[in-house]
Amino acid sequence: LTRAPRGVALVMVGDELLDGRVRDTNSAWLIERITVLRGCVDSLRVVPDDVAGIAAAILHGSAESAAVVVAGGLGPTSDDLSREGLARAAQEELVLDLELLAALHERWRRRGRTMPESNRRQAYRTVSGKPIPNPRGTAPGLLHLLDGVPVVLLPGVPAELHAMWEATAEGIVAPLVAGNAPRRLRLRTARLPESALADAVDAALGQGGAIERGYLVNEFGVDLLLLAGDEQADLDAAGATLLARLAPHVYAVGDAGLERVVVEELLRRRQTLSVAESCTAGLLGGCLTRVPGSSAAFRGGVIAYHDAVKVEALGVPEDLLRSFGAVSEEAARAMATGVRDRLRTDWGLAVTGIAGPAGATAEKPVGMTWVALAGPGATQAERSAFPGDRTQNRTWSVAAALDLLRRALAIQPRLP
Amino acid sequence: LTRAPRGVALVMVGDELLDGRVRDTNSAWLIERITVLRGCVDSLRVVPDDVAGIAAAILHGSAESAAVVVAGGLGPTSDDLSREGLARAAQEELVLDLELLAALHERWRRRGRTMPESNRRQAYRTVSGKPIPNPRGTAPGLLHLLDGVPVVLLPGVPAELHAMWEATAEGIVAPLVAGNAPRRLRLRTARLPESALADAVDAALGQGGAIERGYLVNEFGVDLLLLAGDEQADLDAAGATLLARLAPHVYAVGDAGLERVVVEELLRRRQTLSVAESCTAGLLGGCLTRVPGSSAAFRGGVIAYHDAVKVEALGVPEDLLRSFGAVSEEAARAMATGVRDRLRTDWGLAVTGIAGPAGATAEKPVGMTWVALAGPGATQAERSAFPGDRTQNRTWSVAAALDLLRRALAIQPRLP
Repeated sequence: LTRAPRGVALVMVGDELLDGRVRDTNSAWLIERITVLRGCVDSLRVVPDDVAGIAAAILHGSAESAAVVVAGGLGPTSDDLSREGLARAAQEELVLDLELLAALHERWRRRGRTMPESNRRQAYRTVSGKPIPNPRGTAPGLLHLLDGVPVVLLPGVPAELHAMWEATAEGIVAPLVAGNAPRRLRLRTARLPESALADAVDAALGQGGAIERGYLVNEFGVDLLLLAGDEQADLDAAGATLLARLAPHVYAVGDAGLERVVVEELLRRRQTLSVAESCTAGLLGGCLTRVPGSSAAFRGGVIAYHDAVKVEALGVPEDLLRSFGAVSEEAARAMATGVRDRLRTDWGLAVTGIAGPAGATAEKPVGMTWVALAGPGATQAERSAFPGDRTQNRTWSVAAALDLLRRALAIQPRLP
Repeated sequence: LTRAPRGVALVMVGDELLDGRVRDTNSAWLIERITVLRGCVDSLRVVPDDVAGIAAAILHGSAESAAVVVAGGLGPTSDDLSREGLARAAQEELVLDLELLAALHERWRRRGRTMPESNRRQAYRTVSGKPIPNPRGTAPGLLHLLDGVPVVLLPGVPAELHAMWEATAEGIVAPLVAGNAPRRLRLRTARLPESALADAVDAALGQGGAIERGYLVNEFGVDLLLLAGDEQADLDAAGATLLARLAPHVYAVGDAGLERVVVEELLRRRQTLSVAESCTAGLLGGCLTRVPGSSAAFRGGVIAYHDAVKVEALGVPEDLLRSFGAVSEEAARAMATGVRDRLRTDWGLAVTGIAGPAGATAEKPVGMTWVALAGPGATQAERSAFPGDRTQNRTWSVAAALDLLRRALAIQPRLP
């Protein structure tokens, strides 16, 4: 698979992105947006607030790519130097744009304030440049053609960048780069390590071939990304083959999260759910309720972190805890039926495990987790042995619980 | 504040970082590690799997910086081209390192397998380059001096990169760059928007001045980063001034999270806590139990998403819910006392709010949240109006609850 000839060069400007003060989230957001257009990102450069460095990044970008997008360095202070960097790259002067200056004054006046002198800098542009309006803030953007390649300057404040990308910048960049990148299909899987998924994919499609694969480890599992050239048919065929082969592990085709898949099926069935959580201590309930509208299906639950809460709030017999321990198939089943009975829901979902770092024994190592589901049919339980740290083990425990419910609900994802 | 003369140039290699298949987490990790050494990162370039592009990034980096760190492109397949890029930049041949080849064969033999032919590529190095051992995987690293500037090639797999940075690469890079970056102090604040915090800081320290400020919006509030040149005394003085001025809002000096600060104080006091959650639906319990050892203080709680659960599991009077609604001061107080009584804990902490997008009325808009705390003294309640979306409002609701408890526990952060 060859890369499309030319796409976008990204330049992120700011000392704060390189000294740990601020994490760069703009580049990931722009990559996502350009990818959605099926455009390519050719390169990404993060440079400090320095005229020569900004100019060099713009020149390199415009030599290699069909468009350059610069984010940051448009503020009113003396270390905001993207305008100056562009002017040096273009070998043009910066001139005061009187219309822009009037608009800035007007913006401040509407907020009942006088424009600080420092903001005058934001009314400068290259001689041949064109301002890009900013609906969210004071920093105007700038469009400049450098040997025919559009260079788009946008502010680094994420909300302003997003609004200006959507209103203006995407319209400049999209016609030049859209459709050059490979077509793609995403299969979202649970309960398979990345290497096992890759082996299964290689076995199904053969190694090499026309379909490139990417594996993205996400919160609750591994996403398989299939990339094909311009042949939609190849992609459809590979998707169908893999969906058949991997069916029990694929919870969605496309973007839907595991929690959304489960909640939407409950809403469709008009069924209700409650949870009983020990090691996850609320993460499962917190996750299910990310889905807007989940309140019609999700009733609530009990965080039974201490054993006394398992006994008193869920009715787990003290004897059972003494005989089998709180991390056991028996405890998980009793928690699931207990919460289902007490909250009077169609389904009761329970998690109990040893997240670590403490609490392990020889028989029950860190990462051992039981999930159980009580419902209209027989109660089911499943054991996992997670190899992660406390945070990972708890997240994977949520995934194991959600996925047990998903399989009980017999959800079948389909190709678009 | 002027930038230190020369630091590290980072080069991240891989098509997958630019086409949305994989998010680059290595650069943020390396920036963090280099910052901890008080080293500067001069630039970051993300380039595709392309020999010319990799070579250009290495050449530009070595011309500008004291060291170049390249991550990715060391795998066994034909699109892993960092070795080739370095060779082109250095105008040297790649040669097969027989010792390295033997070590690779040995590594595969120990795992009971024969080395695939493709892995031979990993035994190549530049003529004057030196292999860097990889304790976690098959891809060896490479150290090459380019006109006296060390270029360090590391694999892109995060676990391997981290291990090799710590074992070897940091020792090469640190002596060249450590101590060049500004000294720093972090004050973590809650319940203040970024702009209000910035205004308060400007009022306390004056605008401009020797102390540079950074504002990092984090999960539960805004971190203030103070950067000073080489004068530790300036930083201490500014820190003391700000701590006095901002005291009610500062929950930590340094790295501790809000949940850790609260749990550690409960452990110190040997007190216990339970939670009653409506709109957060478990996120508060999930957050408190991130802290290892929290089980000695956190007992559990009730996820009272549906009103019936508030009544039956927490004893909130039905009348009260009819009169005031579930999102009200009265309901929050009743939930807090209810969970404290039923789980027999020292403190009971409750959250109820309208996370959105649905559920709002004219009197109760999206983002309105009540938190309440029942404890040894009188029950307290606080209202917030959050301006975010569903996800943000729920996270800020957790922060409001934690911060109510923090102030009740009278935690006083101190300068180191």
